[in-house]
Amino acid sequence: MSSIFTKIINGEIPSYKIAEDDNFIAFLDAMPLVKGHTLIVPKKEVDLIFDLENEEYKNLWGFAQQIAKKIKNAVPCVRVGVAVVGLEVPHAHIHLIPLNNVEDMNFKNERLKLTDEEYKEIQHSIINS
Amino acid sequence: MSSIFTKIINGEIPSYKIAEDDNFIAFLDAMPLVKGHTLIVPKKEVDLIFDLENEEYKNLWGFAQQIAKKIKNAVPCVRVGVAVVGLEVPHAHIHLIPLNNVEDMNFKNERLKLTDEEYKEIQHSIINS
Repeated sequence: MSSIFTKIINGEIPSYKIAEDDNFIAFLDAMPLVKGHTLIVPKKEVDLIFDLENEEYKNLWGFAQQIAKKIKNAVPCVRVGVAVVGLEVPHAHIHLIPLNNVEDMNFKNERLKLTDEEYKEIQHSIINS
Repeated sequence: MSSIFTKIINGEIPSYKIAEDDNFIAFLDAMPLVKGHTLIVPKKEVDLIFDLENEEYKNLWGFAQQIAKKIKNAVPCVRVGVAVVGLEVPHAHIHLIPLNNVEDMNFKNERLKLTDEEYKEIQHSIINS
């Protein structure tokens, strides 16, 4: 069965997309820890990020670098943090999380509930930054 | 003033080193969240990881990939997690953290206090894996 991320990649589940190329996609996390929390996902459905072939793995991080710079420009934060956890969805993904303090990256925190308008506002500000 | 990581790189502060090449170094975190918690550091003293020049940035992640595979082989865990936070030391670094659950990556957790023997045992098991 396709992962939830493959369904997003295929457009079967809607998302607030930030960027996409042949191999990678970036979209807003549907259960964000903070505003601007973004996921970077390889289109190839691999469970462990470190199992990606070396060139694709490095290009995934290169893609994340471009998006992180856009997030930093668009979202007020001290810096953009990175996390790879992957205990819930068996499809490798990178979390990019605008941080103001270390507590912003605590995955046990309650997730934000944003309106469609709030998501769109963040999406457009990151895309246009 | 040199960062604490530059002092480690220069051998002015001791560390339990895992691997090193011309550009990058890996050593055990002196304040580990879990056994096997390892830091990956570029020798160039840059604050924000995303400010590294693209090729060096991608090679840093490639170096981390090699070390993560060794950690996964050496340390009992479900997977090796990744975090970049950087709010405390202004010298870019990647945390590689053997995870059994998401709580293992909570940076607010109390850090382990390991003996010199315990550090050396982990160091050697990762190096030799």
